[in-house]
This record gives sequence, structure tokens and C-alpha cells, in this order.
Amino acid sequence: MNNCIISDTAMIKENVIFGDNVIIEANCYIDYGVIIRDNVHIKKGSFIGARCILGEYLMDFYADRINKVHPLVIGENALIRSDTIVYGETIIGNNFQTGHRVTIREKSMIGNNVRVGTLSDIQEECSIGNFVSLHSNVFVGEKSVIKDYVWIFPHVVLTNDPTPPSEILIGVTIEAYAVVAAGSIILPGVNIGQESLVGAGSVVNRNVEKETVVVGNPAKKLCLTTDIRNKLMGQQIYPWKYSFSRGMPWDKIGYEEWVKSENLK
Amino acid sequence: MNNCIISDTAMIKENVIFGDNVIIEANCYIDYGVIIRDNVHIKKGSFIGARCILGEYLMDFYADRINKVHPLVIGENALIRSDTIVYGETIIGNNFQTGHRVTIREKSMIGNNVRVGTLSDIQEECSIGNFVSLHSNVFVGEKSVIKDYVWIFPHVVLTNDPTPPSEILIGVTIEAYAVVAAGSIILPGVNIGQESLVGAGSVVNRNVEKETVVVGNPAKKLCLTTDIRNKLMGQQIYPWKYSFSRGMPWDKIGYEEWVKSENLK
Amino acid sequence: MNNCIISDTAMIKENVIFGDNVIIEANCYIDYGVIIRDNVHIKKGSFIGARCILGEYLMDFYADRINKVHPLVIGENALIRSDTIVYGETIIGNNFQTGHRVTIREKSMIGNNVRVGTLSDIQEECSIGNFVSLHSNVFVGEKSVIKDYVWIFPHVVLTNDPTPPSEILIGVTIEAYAVVAAGSIILPGVNIGQESLVGAGSVVNRNVEKETVVVGNPAKKLCLTTDIRNKLMGQQIYPWKYSFSRGMPWDKIGYEEWVKSENLK
Repeated sequence: MNNCIISDTAMIKENVIFGDNVIIEANCYIDYGVIIRDNVHIKKGSFIGARCILGEYLMDFYADRINKVHPLVIGENALIRSDTIVYGETIIGNNFQTGHRVTIREKSMIGNNVRVGTLSDIQEECSIGNFVSLHSNVFVGEKSVIKDYVWIFPHVVLTNDPTPPSEILIGVTIEAYAVVAAGSIILPGVNIGQESLVGAGSVVNRNVEKETVVVGNPAKKLCLTTDIRNKLMGQQIYPWKYSFSRGMPWDKIGYEEWVKSENLK
Repeated sequence: MNNCIISDTAMIKENVIFGDNVIIEANCYIDYGVIIRDNVHIKKGSFIGARCILGEYLMDFYADRINKVHPLVIGENALIRSDTIVYGETIIGNNFQTGHRVTIREKSMIGNNVRVGTLSDIQEECSIGNFVSLHSNVFVGEKSVIKDYVWIFPHVVLTNDPTPPSEILIGVTIEAYAVVAAGSIILPGVNIGQESLVGAGSVVNRNVEKETVVVGNPAKKLCLTTDIRNKLMGQQIYPWKYSFSRGMPWDKIGYEEWVKSENLK
Repeated sequence: MNNCIISDTAMIKENVIFGDNVIIEANCYIDYGVIIRDNVHIKKGSFIGARCILGEYLMDFYADRINKVHPLVIGENALIRSDTIVYGETIIGNNFQTGHRVTIREKSMIGNNVRVGTLSDIQEECSIGNFVSLHSNVFVGEKSVIKDYVWIFPHVVLTNDPTPPSEILIGVTIEAYAVVAAGSIILPGVNIGQESLVGAGSVVNRNVEKETVVVGNPAKKLCLTTDIRNKLMGQQIYPWKYSFSRGMPWDKIGYEEWVKSENLK
């Protein structure tokens, strides 16, 4: 525990283990038994749940059991629930939230206001935008790209190897505002278009055009998202940004007002 | 650790953390490193595996980092394996068994003799009956209803949002004695009928009638459960309550004798 | 901690718990908070990640809370990442690698150079050969048989109960050099032929012939593996043993040279 800067206003519970060069900013709360390895910077107001491991070793550690410099930065006001593991060499934005037992590998960039559900597993070299929501047990394969305002529901798998096993991985790209429903599998290199909707249990082996609904194994175009109506009331639901706002930057004022206010800035 | 009542006959291993108002009844065994937060009541004879977290914080904790009153009750003779997390504000019956790393959220009611496999994730406001068996890595979405004697096999997903993302969640209902085979996905609000069988890998987007077998993506009716024959010997298998009894209340005497004996009471 | 033999050259971090009759050979590294129960033998050069549980209790422990003799042997140079649980009564070969939170139950035989990804769950009485790679969150049902050089990708499920629930489990067999892509479900007793390829998201309900590609729900024959061409360059990819070598015994020299050199021995 050399060269650490721990704020006086941080709450550190019992049995927390600190490596070297750790920075814990003001008003953080580090719960029982957390392991913070070297070169981890946790910004102000963050909560780290019991027995998380932050700055986990990359493969190079195991060669000689000496930890190399792979900094991890966790932004302000994180809420990281217990037993989550985040590797070094990753940068996470503000207001990050996780469920329990999340795994996040090295060399990923995660934006602001991202939520990752229990058991989800984000592999290395992924890029995740802002206001992205991953539900429980989502597998995000190496080199995946997930743009802003994307929703991914439980047990979705983003693959990356077109001819397994191989050395040439081609990640999936999910464009902004797209929604991937539960249990879907997206094949390597597929592009899920902006504001599109992948129905539950789909196996998507080709690109999905924007504002399109696909479903099935293999997934086929069903309709446009604008064709979907609420079964009870009959009103249009998509683009969802007009009908849903909880946790989004347009919460309370609505998407249109928010766009206006953003443009005025 | 204020106001706790720990039975003299309870075995408490090293590094267990107790909150306030905890009750541990006779002959419990609390293994190494368990965290028991406030207002947890563990009834007699229960085993709590290493590093479980019981009475985990609800969302309201994170606002001011003060734990509100959300009691958790775990019935008699539980066998909860290591690394399992159970939130506050849930009531669990007797003879509960889990594998490892199970997550159970708040505001659920779980009956007697329920078994939940490794990695399964039960979200909030679920209702689970008696003698229910969930195998490994089952995802039980918020507001799911699972009746008595239901079997759910590995990697099944019970969804709840008909128009994701939305605020109007409609849980799945699985009627008594139904069986959902591995890897199936049940769409929001679907009713899986009594004694029905959902084949492995099905995507079920409409109600399943009782005693019916469905299979495929989307799932379609294949036959009646009574049409299924054992491949080797040719005998009828379903309703399974006549052919299977391990762990069931009719163990050893058979279903028909058990019904008779129940009626005589 | 009676009757333990811990090498002087082993690194034991804080808060490690030892049972009885534990052997830790030279140059092992046991990270923070590992629990090693009775009769565990860890061979030289192995790394055991934080908070693993080795030699976990079998069901017979819970009857009287006395640990019976169920030895666990972990071969040389293992790299077992944090939070992994391995039961007693299992034998694991050399150069074993796991991700995080792997669960391995009792009575399995695991060969040399096997890799098991994060969250994977290997049930009891499985047989796994040499140079097998399981990616994240693979479910290997009881009595599965996985031969040498097999690849299984994320979220694959190997089932075993032809008429659930029943007492007669028939495991899946995956023959040597076969590849099962992400999210596939293999039904009970199915044989996946040598060098075959199961496409992502398949539900396989009948045997797959050798060197055959199957895909879909239910899976159907698509072509031979030798028919597959790389989309960019047009070259043949399968049998993969000629095009891929990382981590394989023919690494650097190629499969043909390796076979020759093996024959010369």
C-alpha cells in the first residue's frame, strides 16, 4: 500500500486490501473485503460493493507474478455492487452502475451513465457509449461497439469470431437507440441499425437496417418499429425515446424538449 | 451488531459480519466470511455457505448510505451455498436449497422446498410456490409467478417487458407441474399451462395450453404430454408426477398414494 | 489445518483458510482469501486467484456437517482466476486455466491444457479431454463427455435429461476437434461428430456427422466444414487444426509437422 491517496471523507470498511498508487476521492464508500490492486483511481462519491476486485491482473501478471502498470479509472458517483471484477487498463465514465458479479475486462472504454446488470461479462477492447443499459448476464464479446442509448436485455450474446476458432475477431456494432431483446445472439461483425429492435430469442446473422424489427432464427425483418402498437391502448411505442425517459437525460422534460434545450446551449 | 440474537448452538465461522437486529436460530451453521446485514432472521438448522450476503441493500440504501428496514426471513433447514446474495424484504420458506452465486432480489415470496441452481437470478416482486426446482442460470424476471411443482432447466429466461424499454412490466406465469426445458425464452405475460412441457431452446410468444408440448422458435404445439413415450421401453412418461418422485412430497409412496393420504387428513 | 504440507516457496496471501491434509507444492501462489478445504493437492507452479474455494463440500457434508474424504487434485501450472469453486472428488490435469467464478462439481476428470471461461458451470461426472477450450458461461450438464481439442463458445448448454424431470440422465458427447458456436443447445445423448461445426444459436436434437456443419432450430445440415471459405480471401478454413494453432501442441510448427514429430517419437 505505497503511494496511496485516500480521502479523509471516504468510508473504508473492514478487510479492504489496497495495492500501490491507489486514489480514492471524497465521499467514496468501499465496502467489506474489496480488493483494490495497483493504479486504481476511484472518483468522488462512488460506492464499491463488498468483495469487488478492482484493477484485476491482466495476463502479463501471471508470467512473473509482477503487476505491470495498467491503470483503471472509475468515474464519479459509481454504484458498483458486490463481487464485481474490473480489470486494469480500462476507463469508466461517471454515474456507472452495476449489479452483482459483473466482469469487465481490460482495454475497454465505457461512457457516462452506463448500467450493467448482474453477471454480465464485458470482454476486452470493447467500446460502450453513454446511457447504455445492459441487463443481467449479457455477454459482450471482445471488440464489440455499443453506441449511446442502447438497451440490451438478459442473456444476449454478442459474438466476434466468424470462423471459430480463429485469430481474426470482428466485433458486433450496435447503433444508437437500438434495442436487443432477451436471449438474442448477434453473429460476428453484424451491424444492428439505429433505433432498430431485435426481438427476443433471435439469431441475427446479417445487418439490421435502422428502425427495423427483426425476429427469429435466423432473424428476418418483421416490420418497422413505427408499426408496433401497444396491445392495450393502440398507441405507437417506437422510437422509444419519445415514450420512455427514466434514467435518460430527457427524464421529466421529454425527448423533444431536451433536444431543444441541448440545441440552445 | 446491536440487538442480535444468536443461538448458542449456532456455529459461526471466522470473519462473519453481523448487522443489527439479526436472529440466528438453533443449529445454524454460518460459514466463513458471510455478511449478514440488518434485520435478517435465519431459522433453525440452516446452513449459510461461505461469503454469502444476506439482507443485501435495496436501492434506497445508496441515496444516503443508511440501511432502511427491509427484513429478510429464511426458513428452517435452508442449504444456501457459497457466494449467494439475498436482498432484504423477501420471505423464503423452509428447506430452501441453492447452488452457488444465486442472486435473489427484494419483495419476492418463495415457498417451501424450493431449489435454485447455481447462478440463477431471481428479480424483484416474484412469487414462487412450493417444491419448485430451478436449475442453473435461470433468469426469473421481475413480477414472474411460478406455481407449485414447476421445473425450470438451465439457462431459461422469463422476460417481462412487452415493448422494451418500458415501465409496464408483465410477468410470465408458469402453472403447477409445468416443465420448461433448457435454454427456452418465455415472452412477457405468457401463461405456461398446468402440466405442460416447453421443449429445449423454445421461444414461447403465446400461451401454452395445459398438458401440451410446445417446441421451436417461435414455439408451436407438437403434441400432448401424454403422447410422449420413453424411447427405450415405450412407456408413458407424463404427467411426470406419476413417474418421478425424488424430492417431492410423494417420494417413496407415489403420487396417487400421497393424494389419498392427503385427502384422508 | 492438520497434516498440511505447504512448500516453503509457495506464496500464501492474507486470509487464506486451510483444511486438513492439504498439499501445496513449490512455487504456488494462493491469493487473498482462498478457502482450501480438506484433502486438496495443488501441484507446483499453480496460481489460485482471490477467494476461490477448492475442495468444496459434496452433498454428504450437509447431512452431519462432517467433511468426508473427497480428494481434489489440481495439476501443475494451473491458473485459476478469482471466485472459482472446485468440488472435491475431481482430478484436473496440468496447465489448467479458468476465468472468474467458474464452478466445477465432483467426480469429473479434466485432462491437460484445458481452459474454462468465466461463469462456466461443469456439473458432476463429466469427462473432459486435453486441449479443450470452453468460453464464458458454458453449461456442461452431468455426464457430459468432451473429447480432445474441442471448442465450445459462450452460453452453450449441454443437456442430459431426455424426459425432464427424470432419474435417467444421458450426457452429450462431443467428439474431438468439434466446434460448438455461441448460444447453442445440445439435447440429451446427442453425439457431435469429430471435426464438425455447430453454428451459433442452434438447437441440436440429433447426432451430427463428422466434418458436418449444422445450424438452426432444430439444427439441420448446412454443408461440410470443408465447404466453408473465408469471406475476405476465399481460402478454406476447416479442418481448423490446419489454420489455427495458438495454445495447441502444434503451435508454431503447424499441425502436419507436429503429427510427423509425434509419430517419430
